[in-house]
Amino acid sequence: MTESAVDVVGIGNAIVDVIANADDAFLARQGLDKGAMRLIDQPTAERLYGEMGPGLECSGGSAANSMVALASLGARSAYIGKVKDDELGRIFAHDIRASGVMFESRFAAHGAATARCLILVTPDAQRTMNTFLGASTDFGPGDLDAGLVGKASVTYLEGYLWDKPAAKDAFRQALQHAHKQGRKVALSLSDAFCVDRHRAEFRALVEHDIDILFANEAEIRSLYQVDDFDRALQHVRGHCEVAALTRSEKGSVVVRGEEIHVVDAAPVKRVVDTTGAGDFYAAGFLYGLTHKFDLARCARLGALAAAKVIGHFGARPETALKPLVEVSAKPLKR
Amino acid sequence: MTESAVDVVGIGNAIVDVIANADDAFLARQGLDKGAMRLIDQPTAERLYGEMGPGLECSGGSAANSMVALASLGARSAYIGKVKDDELGRIFAHDIRASGVMFESRFAAHGAATARCLILVTPDAQRTMNTFLGASTDFGPGDLDAGLVGKASVTYLEGYLWDKPAAKDAFRQALQHAHKQGRKVALSLSDAFCVDRHRAEFRALVEHDIDILFANEAEIRSLYQVDDFDRALQHVRGHCEVAALTRSEKGSVVVRGEEIHVVDAAPVKRVVDTTGAGDFYAAGFLYGLTHKFDLARCARLGALAAAKVIGHFGARPETALKPLVEVSAKPLKR
Repeated sequence: MTESAVDVVGIGNAIVDVIANADDAFLARQGLDKGAMRLIDQPTAERLYGEMGPGLECSGGSAANSMVALASLGARSAYIGKVKDDELGRIFAHDIRASGVMFESRFAAHGAATARCLILVTPDAQRTMNTFLGASTDFGPGDLDAGLVGKASVTYLEGYLWDKPAAKDAFRQALQHAHKQGRKVALSLSDAFCVDRHRAEFRALVEHDIDILFANEAEIRSLYQVDDFDRALQHVRGHCEVAALTRSEKGSVVVRGEEIHVVDAAPVKRVVDTTGAGDFYAAGFLYGLTHKFDLARCARLGALAAAKVIGHFGARPETALKPLVEVSAKPLKR
Repeated sequence: MTESAVDVVGIGNAIVDVIANADDAFLARQGLDKGAMRLIDQPTAERLYGEMGPGLECSGGSAANSMVALASLGARSAYIGKVKDDELGRIFAHDIRASGVMFESRFAAHGAATARCLILVTPDAQRTMNTFLGASTDFGPGDLDAGLVGKASVTYLEGYLWDKPAAKDAFRQALQHAHKQGRKVALSLSDAFCVDRHRAEFRALVEHDIDILFANEAEIRSLYQVDDFDRALQHVRGHCEVAALTRSEKGSVVVRGEEIHVVDAAPVKRVVDTTGAGDFYAAGFLYGLTHKFDLARCARLGALAAAKVIGHFGARPETALKPLVEVSAKPLKR
């Protein structure tokens, strides 16, 4: 294994977020599950957009958010994903590059428009996501940069990729490339409904292929179909090399073999929009892992990064995250 | 004069803002005047966009921001402006309608892309604006809805319209339509450099045609080419029926004939981005005027609305402004 040129390469659906305030009654009228991500087709996207309030557009995409947060922390990160050569696609490409992330994926010249996610933020700061995959639907093995994957310490994959067959193939190939070069592969389970759609395959992945797993409480319980967080924890311990399980305001639990740490959430003045919390936690954690921090510090850095992103709208950093690296060296202040 | 069906119709350049953080060194390298608006062509827009940081996209446009703020206060507002039938144009149209503003202007099928303004926000919360006018360049008398102008108590025009000949013609026609129906016409001077470009014509307008004038300190000093705010005030007193002069944290001075009020700025916890401060002041003030509030209360409502918009990124309301109407009935809390 040669020295890695990149700390983490993220692969995922390249999405521009459209963020709007909504109340619970609006979610109810639209039949939406609060806190979940659902896939929608273009007519549904147009209808919902027509009915929702005025929006704020901001580049998003789960793995892309993580790579931007990693760059903001000071890591060398790269991203692979697909946008069209349209206004939102150019916005996505500009934003991720301007954030210091390597992004060389080619624009799609034809086909569906750049993916967008209509995010409804309720007064309790929960986000409910409606994704029109657009150009991301065509993401496949041909879009992979195998050389890049081979050069990265960690390849970070989002579970959302499993919703489309071609993206799933790309996911599997990336996994093989990475392991062939002796690199680590990380997976985020993305969403409890996503786990529901792909449970058997996700379980096999976690048992056999994934080195580093990220999941929140709902996702890990869904994976093992248990009601109890602790039971899910006992399952996953034997499966991945490292698992980082997030529990919102209850903090996170991280395990590696016999080692286990229960780490508090970092304090937040006011939670505005929880979009990106999991993505930023993963970024902080992976910064720590690729910089040889002990496991508890990795979790603290994850918590600190997550606390930052939920204090404002959107899932990209508003200020540089780099100072958090120092802060993570010590116990979190309450 | 018949009863008005609309409180205020705004006419202006329809723009989507692209907001990014920047430091003073970046402004210096780009040769930009902090706090000003400059017009840029497409190659310059592309170059600057390529060099600036990741952005947040949000519908903007000076008069459009004011109309959205008016709707959020509970007024009946309408907007006339030109966007193209492209992604940013559809975003603009969605946002203004979803904000409760009447907007019936047709999309341009051909020609330049929807206008965008690259807004650089420095750590002192000042905004420096770089506008590519795009589709707004073609805005002209043919885009005017004379019926709508005739039905509105106040027609609100932005000074920026004078930067293009066709828009200037539309401005003049709107003014005539409004006065023919016995309605009032308001003008915002928009920007000190804009005043510089059109001083003689703006002075003639203010002396002969405009009923309600909005200007900040730099703009009114530029209009009369005086160094001293008080001297500018003495000039304008005799010219318009009402003048509202804003002075940032020093509050505002409003005059109507012999009547004059000096009103404090409303307190703000943390100034994040001053984009839209003048637009929201005008909205609060015009809400007051069209609802027969006394002049001091109009100014207080303007101050309260301005204080709201500078507490976050972007020039559209994040929460409903309606509660401010009640608050404006009493002296402002310090």
